[in-house]
Amino acid sequence: MNPFSSPLLADLYQFTMLQSYLEQDMQETAVFELFIRKLPPGRNFMVAAGLEQVLDFLENLKFSPEELAWLATRFRPPLIDYFEQFRFSGDVHAMPEGTLFFPNEPILRITAPLPQAQLIESRLINLLHFETLIASKAARSVLVAPGKLLVDFGMRRAHGAEAGLLAARASYLAGFSGTATVLAGALYDIPLFGTMAHSYIQAHADEMTAFEHFAHANADNVVLLIDTYDTEAAASKVVALAPKLQAAHINIKGVRLDSGDLAAHARNVRQILDQGGLQSATIFASGNLDEYRLQTLLSSQAPIDGFGIGTALDISSDAPAFDCAYKLQEYAGKPRRKRSEGKATWPGRKQVYRFYTTQGEMSHDVVALEENDPCDGRPLLEPVLLAGQRIQSKISLHDIRQRTVAGYSRLPKAMTAPATALDAAPSYPVIISTALQDLAKQFDAEMMTRL
Amino acid sequence: MNPFSSPLLADLYQFTMLQSYLEQDMQETAVFELFIRKLPPGRNFMVAAGLEQVLDFLENLKFSPEELAWLATRFRPPLIDYFEQFRFSGDVHAMPEGTLFFPNEPILRITAPLPQAQLIESRLINLLHFETLIASKAARSVLVAPGKLLVDFGMRRAHGAEAGLLAARASYLAGFSGTATVLAGALYDIPLFGTMAHSYIQAHADEMTAFEHFAHANADNVVLLIDTYDTEAAASKVVALAPKLQAAHINIKGVRLDSGDLAAHARNVRQILDQGGLQSATIFASGNLDEYRLQTLLSSQAPIDGFGIGTALDISSDAPAFDCAYKLQEYAGKPRRKRSEGKATWPGRKQVYRFYTTQGEMSHDVVALEENDPCDGRPLLEPVLLAGQRIQSKISLHDIRQRTVAGYSRLPKAMTAPATALDAAPSYPVIISTALQDLAKQFDAEMMTRL
Repeated sequence: MNPFSSPLLADLYQFTMLQSYLEQDMQETAVFELFIRKLPPGRNFMVAAGLEQVLDFLENLKFSPEELAWLATRFRPPLIDYFEQFRFSGDVHAMPEGTLFFPNEPILRITAPLPQAQLIESRLINLLHFETLIASKAARSVLVAPGKLLVDFGMRRAHGAEAGLLAARASYLAGFSGTATVLAGALYDIPLFGTMAHSYIQAHADEMTAFEHFAHANADNVVLLIDTYDTEAAASKVVALAPKLQAAHINIKGVRLDSGDLAAHARNVRQILDQGGLQSATIFASGNLDEYRLQTLLSSQAPIDGFGIGTALDISSDAPAFDCAYKLQEYAGKPRRKRSEGKATWPGRKQVYRFYTTQGEMSHDVVALEENDPCDGRPLLEPVLLAGQRIQSKISLHDIRQRTVAGYSRLPKAMTAPATALDAAPSYPVIISTALQDLAKQFDAEMMTRL
Repeated sequence: MNPFSSPLLADLYQFTMLQSYLEQDMQETAVFELFIRKLPPGRNFMVAAGLEQVLDFLENLKFSPEELAWLATRFRPPLIDYFEQFRFSGDVHAMPEGTLFFPNEPILRITAPLPQAQLIESRLINLLHFETLIASKAARSVLVAPGKLLVDFGMRRAHGAEAGLLAARASYLAGFSGTATVLAGALYDIPLFGTMAHSYIQAHADEMTAFEHFAHANADNVVLLIDTYDTEAAASKVVALAPKLQAAHINIKGVRLDSGDLAAHARNVRQILDQGGLQSATIFASGNLDEYRLQTLLSSQAPIDGFGIGTALDISSDAPAFDCAYKLQEYAGKPRRKRSEGKATWPGRKQVYRFYTTQGEMSHDVVALEENDPCDGRPLLEPVLLAGQRIQSKISLHDIRQRTVAGYSRLPKAMTAPATALDAAPSYPVIISTALQDLAKQFDAEMMTRL
C-alpha cells in the first residue's frame, strides 16, 4: 500500500457510503465543488496550488491486490468487485495553479459517477488544501521582500515527508527562489540552496578551520555560517580568510546569520565585509523568520540579501488550516445544497468570472451558474481532465511560478505593496449572480415542502 | 525515489557538509541529541512519539541507483562512492514512545560516525517532531473527556498524506479510540470509525430514505448524520425508522451532529431518542471541535457520548510546531556546545532520571551526564538500536497506548484533572545536575581562550 497514492487514503465513511450507493445503484453523475469558506484574519487573497498532484492521483487511482484483500475482510463482495475494476472516469474543471482566488469561489469541480466522486473526497482536499495553504502563505513573503532571495528551510518541522516536499513546491510556485530540501529539488526541479549547520562548526577545533575546509569542499557555493560563537568576530575571520581562498581561486559568496538581533548583526557584518574588501559577499539571514519579521527587517533597511524561512512557512503558522469544503452541488441532473447551520452552500455547477479595470487591475469576480447565466468576464475554471484523461500538457513549475508572480501585479495595490501587503485590505468583491441566488431560493422553497 | 524513505529527504547543507567531512576524513564518533526547548503557552508536558518510524527509516536507509545518479551530477566522486556503501551503523538511545517528558530533556540520542549522524538530521526531526506534536495535542482531549469515544477525523486537512497517517497513529498512541482514516487502520491496526457525509443525504430524494438505505448497507454500524436539514426533525425520523429496522434485525447504534449549538441539539436529540425508545442509541458530535470545546460541552453536561476531532488535532491548532532541536553534544570524545544567542545547549552525553513521590506521582526529573554523574532516579533513555540493528522487539501500538494512558495517572493532578488539564500548571521541575552545569562552564571557559 503506497501511502501517497493508495485509494485507502480516505475516510471510512466513503466506504460505508459506497456500499450503500452500489446496493441502490446510485451511480448517476454527481458534481462536487471545492472551495474555501473564508479568509483567515489579515489575509486578502489565496493562491491555488496542488492541481498537478490531484491529477496524478486521479489518473493513477486503482486498488492493489493487497488493498482488495484487506477490504474484503470488512466489506461485501459487490463493493470489492466494484473496486477491482475501479478507475476514475470523471471530469475535472479547475483554476490553473497559481490563480489568485477568494472565498466561496470553486477552485475545482469534479463531475463523475457518484461513488467515484465520493471516494476521492478526502485525498483531493488533503492535497489541494495543503498546497494552496502554503502557496498563499509564501505569497506574503514574496510581496514584502521584492528582489530578495527567499528559500524554503522548513522541511524538518513540516508535518511529515509529503508536507516538506509539497511545501517546497508550493512556495516555489508562489515566487520563492528555491528550497533546501534535496528531494524536492530532485522531484520537482526546484533550485536548491544550503550552507552548513552549527554542528559543522562545532565539530571542528576552531571556526577558521571549519570555514576553510568548507570552502575547499564547496568552492562554488561558499556561504559561511557565522553566528556559532561570536558573529562579528566570525565576520572578521571571513575577511582574513578571503585572500587565502582567492589565491586558490575560491570566492566567498556570502555569510549566514541565524540568531540574535539580525538587523544589528547584519549592519555590523556588512561594515566588516565591506571594509575587508568583500563588498560582493551577500548576507543571508535565517532563524524563526516569517513575513512579519521580513517586513520589519527590510523597513529598517537592514542590509540583508536573502532569507531562509522555515517553520512559519511550512506550517503556515498564522493560519495552519483553511476552512475548505468539497460539497455536492448537483446529482442526477438536479441541483443540491447543504443547508446545515452556518455551513450552507450555493447549489449547481458554477463558473467564476474575473473582471479587470481598463488599467488591467482586477476589479471584481462573479460566481455564476455554468449554464444559462451568461457573463462576459474571464472564466477561471478550465477543463483539465475529461473521462479520466488529462487534456492539457503539463506546464513546468517554472512557468506556473512566472504566471503566479505576474498575477500579483494585477491585484489591488494595497494588497501587494510591501508596506501594506500583510494588512487586511478592503474585501475584493465577489458577486453571486442573480440566477444563482434564484436557484438557491428555489431549492430552499422545494426543500420546505418536503420537510 | 520513495518520498517516505529516501535519504534525499534531507537539507542541501547535509550534503555540502558531508563533502567536507569526507575530504577531511572527519568520521569519528559524534553524539547528537534531540530535545524540545520550551513548552507552548498553556501546555504542561509532552508525549514522546515517532520512534518506531525513526527506527524504520534508519534500518532501511540506503541510496538507490537513481538517487546516486542524481547526486553524481552535483557532487564529487568520493561522496558518491561513500553513498554507494552507505548504511546507518550507529546507535540510538531514546525514551520509549508514550513517555511523558519536558523541555530540555533529550528524548533521543544518536551515536554514530559524524557524516551518518549529520545526514539523518532533517528526516529524524521531521518524524519525531510531528508525531510528538500530535500525541501531545491528543493527550489534552483524552484528559478533558475521560470515558468518551474520541476519533481522529483530521486527515483531509492534515498537511499531506503522511501527516494524516501519522496523526492517526500518534493520537491513538496518546489514548484516542481510533481514526476515520482507512489507510491508517490498515497500516497500523488502529480501530476505524465512520458514518456518512452530508452529500450522502443530499444525493437521496429524502432524508428518511437515505437513513434506511444506509442502515441496510451497514447493518452493524448504523450511525446516522442528522444535521443536514433540521436536526430535531431528523431525530424524529430516526425514531420513526427504528421499528422498521428492528424488524429486519438492524439496530440503530447512534446519531451524529455536525453543526449548530451542539450542546442544545444534543439535549433535544437525547430527549427525542429516549422518548422514542432509543435510550441505547449514542450521540456523537463533530464539527470544528478541539479540546477546549470538549471541555466546555462536557462541563455543561451535554449528553454527548463521543467526539470526532479533525483539523484542530491533525494540525495541532494552538501550537502547530514545537521549538525542537537536534544538536551536536560530543565529537571525537570531546563535549561540544552551541552558544548562539538564545539557543545555547547543554554539552555531553546525557541521561534523564525520573523521581516519584511515595504515592507514585512524578515529582521531578534530573538531566545528568551519562557517565560519572550517578543518579538514583529511573533512567528514561534506553538503548533501542545498536550498530544499526534494533535490539528490542517491536511493541504493539495498542500496548504503547496503554502505557501512555497509565502514565497520565502519575502526573501531578492539576495537569490531568478534566477541569484544569488545559491550564498552565506550576512547571514540573527539571533539574540540571551539578556535573552537567560544571561541564558547560568548563567548556565555555575553554572556548573563551580560543576565540
